[in-house]
Amino acid sequence: MVNVEEFIEETIRRIRDAAGGEKVVMALSGGVDSSVCAALAAQAIGDRLVPIYVDTGLMRKGETERIRSLFPDMNLRVVDAGDEFFEALAGITDPEEKRRIIGERFVRIFEREAKRTGATMLLQGTIYPDRIESEGGIKSHHNVGGMPIDIEFTAVIEPLADLYKDEVREVAGGLDLPAEIQHRMPFPGPGLAVRVLGEVTREKIEIVREANAIVEECLVEEFRPWQCFAALLGLGTGVRDGARLHGWIVAVRAIHSPGGMTAEPLLLPYETLTGMVSRITSGIPGVARVVYDLTPKPPATIEYE
Amino acid sequence: MVNVEEFIEETIRRIRDAAGGEKVVMALSGGVDSSVCAALAAQAIGDRLVPIYVDTGLMRKGETERIRSLFPDMNLRVVDAGDEFFEALAGITDPEEKRRIIGERFVRIFEREAKRTGATMLLQGTIYPDRIESEGGIKSHHNVGGMPIDIEFTAVIEPLADLYKDEVREVAGGLDLPAEIQHRMPFPGPGLAVRVLGEVTREKIEIVREANAIVEECLVEEFRPWQCFAALLGLGTGVRDGARLHGWIVAVRAIHSPGGMTAEPLLLPYETLTGMVSRITSGIPGVARVVYDLTPKPPATIEYE
Repeated sequence: MVNVEEFIEETIRRIRDAAGGEKVVMALSGGVDSSVCAALAAQAIGDRLVPIYVDTGLMRKGETERIRSLFPDMNLRVVDAGDEFFEALAGITDPEEKRRIIGERFVRIFEREAKRTGATMLLQGTIYPDRIESEGGIKSHHNVGGMPIDIEFTAVIEPLADLYKDEVREVAGGLDLPAEIQHRMPFPGPGLAVRVLGEVTREKIEIVREANAIVEECLVEEFRPWQCFAALLGLGTGVRDGARLHGWIVAVRAIHSPGGMTAEPLLLPYETLTGMVSRITSGIPGVARVVYDLTPKPPATIEYE
Repeated sequence: MVNVEEFIEETIRRIRDAAGGEKVVMALSGGVDSSVCAALAAQAIGDRLVPIYVDTGLMRKGETERIRSLFPDMNLRVVDAGDEFFEALAGITDPEEKRRIIGERFVRIFEREAKRTGATMLLQGTIYPDRIESEGGIKSHHNVGGMPIDIEFTAVIEPLADLYKDEVREVAGGLDLPAEIQHRMPFPGPGLAVRVLGEVTREKIEIVREANAIVEECLVEEFRPWQCFAALLGLGTGVRDGARLHGWIVAVRAIHSPGGMTAEPLLLPYETLTGMVSRITSGIPGVARVVYDLTPKPPATIEYE
């Protein structure tokens, strides 16, 4: 990408040309990629863009409300699908199986909703590293793109397919999107499900969602990490009022990354870390322990599953 | 304890008086408590002390060899019982159940071996905090002491029952025991089994044993923590040579403690931490991630289960 203004202008023209007079559907996750994609397409084709937001029950705290308020003028469809996902995930412990089920379920719901809109084209926020990692086999789930979708679209439009994440953020700036979107961290397609080891349950997702919100409050503004989040590793022993109990072990991960392909853990001030630990253990019933992830990528991935 | 020399002199006399001409058996774990106890009793009654060391297969790296070489002149019996323990633990995931099975198995083996010695008395390294925590119900396994033992001993001798850990270390110094024993960190009765979450397998114990050895090498001499160790939390994703894989998540815990009742994590220099992380992930095949435990006690316990 040579120049942001030029890129925006040309991309809007390209989307308008590609769409013709047709309706275009897209999965809007609220991440920077799909948000930039939606903003570009809205300028290109207005109401003929129909963004679908699937609330999987595995989203971050307040995500659904936030998306509604961020795109008040769009022709947005919000699908409340938490029950479907939790049902499909009951008893599943294998990480690949979890990802597959979530991707599959997501695509089926998206298909159902997309058909209702009568759209003939698909818009996707795929970026360059997504394509590379798909080819290398490292990720097994990407938005809608990773799964075969059972609709005969006349075209699939991927306006960001040649950009790196940092370039997408520049475009967000050029589009005057809110700073909150522009600086938004990547969030995995399968959502919080890959931030709990093993079976996905409502209880585990509730806890990791709360912990994640605390981590973001403590770190995002002050340290601007590439990504920071909480994960739930399992049950360990704790002690409260002299009695032994079992409580969840929360891991905190905060990393710098040149584009997501490799990553280094943030070496945060201990004052920040201990304050965050105390907020998590005192604020979330059932959490007995907090650990901080010190592993680069490789050998660890950024996410936990 | 007023004075180390006085304590040693009086305790040796007390043990000699209590033992009379009888044989005394004890479970020698190699920890500072049982080692001090053994050293005192050896001075008091010589060969009539029969220490039994049960190698549960859940001990630290090189532990059995170390014990043999530390007490070359003692009437030591070493029992190789790893197979028995792994068999008894197969399929067991509940932490309390794991502890119970290990305690039970340990006592049965100890009974069997103790009967063979013809000893009529039992010597135990119980210290003051053990008694407190047993009463409070926080721990469910202590050496042999926590489990009812099916031998009619004529007496149970507990020479350290009124001492705190630091006082036991002073006594170790007064007895001229090797510095290695004197500064030895507490090690849980159920061994490495409480440092792997969930089911105990040979693979998990092997990995946590190697990780634990690295943690001790990196931290013990330089930082003199109350306790430092590695634990195995579960499987997460990693990446090697561009391919996605599942690898173990190792937690490192290093704490200061005023006697074990409460604890604070060591805020280690990041250089030390990242060096240790790199040694663990590159040195132990199958480990993809290392986290550092930042939780005080309470709300976490020192150990993981």
